[in-house]
Amino acid sequence: MKVLYIYAHPEPKSFNGALKDTALAALQEKGYEVKLSDLYAMKFDPILKSSDFPERKKPDVFNPFLEALNASKTEAFAPDIKEEMGKVKWADLLIFQFPIYFTFMPAIMKGWIDRVLVPGFGFNPVTNSAYNTGLFKGKSAMLVTTTGAPKEMYSEGGAHGDLNKHLESITHCIFEYMGMEVLPSYVIYGASSMSREKGAEELEKYRKRLLEI
Amino acid sequence: MKVLYIYAHPEPKSFNGALKDTALAALQEKGYEVKLSDLYAMKFDPILKSSDFPERKKPDVFNPFLEALNASKTEAFAPDIKEEMGKVKWADLLIFQFPIYFTFMPAIMKGWIDRVLVPGFGFNPVTNSAYNTGLFKGKSAMLVTTTGAPKEMYSEGGAHGDLNKHLESITHCIFEYMGMEVLPSYVIYGASSMSREKGAEELEKYRKRLLEI
Repeated sequence: MKVLYIYAHPEPKSFNGALKDTALAALQEKGYEVKLSDLYAMKFDPILKSSDFPERKKPDVFNPFLEALNASKTEAFAPDIKEEMGKVKWADLLIFQFPIYFTFMPAIMKGWIDRVLVPGFGFNPVTNSAYNTGLFKGKSAMLVTTTGAPKEMYSEGGAHGDLNKHLESITHCIFEYMGMEVLPSYVIYGASSMSREKGAEELEKYRKRLLEI
Repeated sequence: MKVLYIYAHPEPKSFNGALKDTALAALQEKGYEVKLSDLYAMKFDPILKSSDFPERKKPDVFNPFLEALNASKTEAFAPDIKEEMGKVKWADLLIFQFPIYFTFMPAIMKGWIDRVLVPGFGFNPVTNSAYNTGLFKGKSAMLVTTTGAPKEMYSEGGAHGDLNKHLESITHCIFEYMGMEVLPSYVIYGASSMSREKGAEELEKYRKRLLEI
């Protein structure tokens, strides 16, 4: 299996950094091929903009939707987008690992989605039933994330509500929309107040989870 | 009333650009004071990073949560963050206008939230009941957004599900969390396939909505 690991955390020495290292080691132990997109390390530019499309169809007014559709026919995207698209095409499984910032992914990862998984690449926007015609059929996707807040806060009836419900705007409206199978999200709650021992336990649990994939 | 209008679209000549111009005119007609954060025009940097905190408490390992809490005591934030914080403090009402990109806001606006509405500024993270102790009590917030997809797709039972449910990760988990009153989101569906006449009608409807605020 070929795995693209998309990772966003600004500090390599963080718990998220350790999770990512654990994951890469486990996937390699499993014999999988792995490519990494470490968005902070790559200084990935998250801003969707006109220069993403070097061969503009309408140079006077920038319409991201139309330009993406047009560029998808000829692959006329900016080099950093093409590189990420190449990794996505190659992969059977996409894993997105990030810390929850305000009940969602950090901006740098949202920008990766905005710029890479564009209309014409991940889904066919000509039809509104893209759930049935998603262009990533056969691929799978999984979210791996940490929260500062404890699990109760992110559970049904808790102050924020069920985190998995909130994440449906990603797992359902992006991954399933594009035809991907969604693996259960892997969430580590209360990461900001974990002891060193608890952290080590969580790394080992995550390693075992990935060995089962 | 003092209004901060936070706006994200890459093309001034777009329908979103016209909505923003309509809004600014209507709010001024109403006699409100308005400040604008036009994130694309400002080339706002959406990436949360260590240099956001010029007086690092822990220079060896970057922990965004701890650094934000610490910086909030002395206002030791990067200049672009301080400027935005000043506008937020000044405002009674925050309006966020953006096109829906993948059932959420564009990365550049998510980054504004990640970097500006940090722990210690918008909410008190020492307590988990921040919903009752949010630091923006007395302020209100409103989302204004356009979708390419038609309303059916973003309704309950539709392919994506109810857009307002998805937006709760913003309206509930960010705005209400920080103590703000949430005004009903203003959504214009199917914006990508609107006629010129329909577009003009929508601008007039939006103008009237803002005159009622």
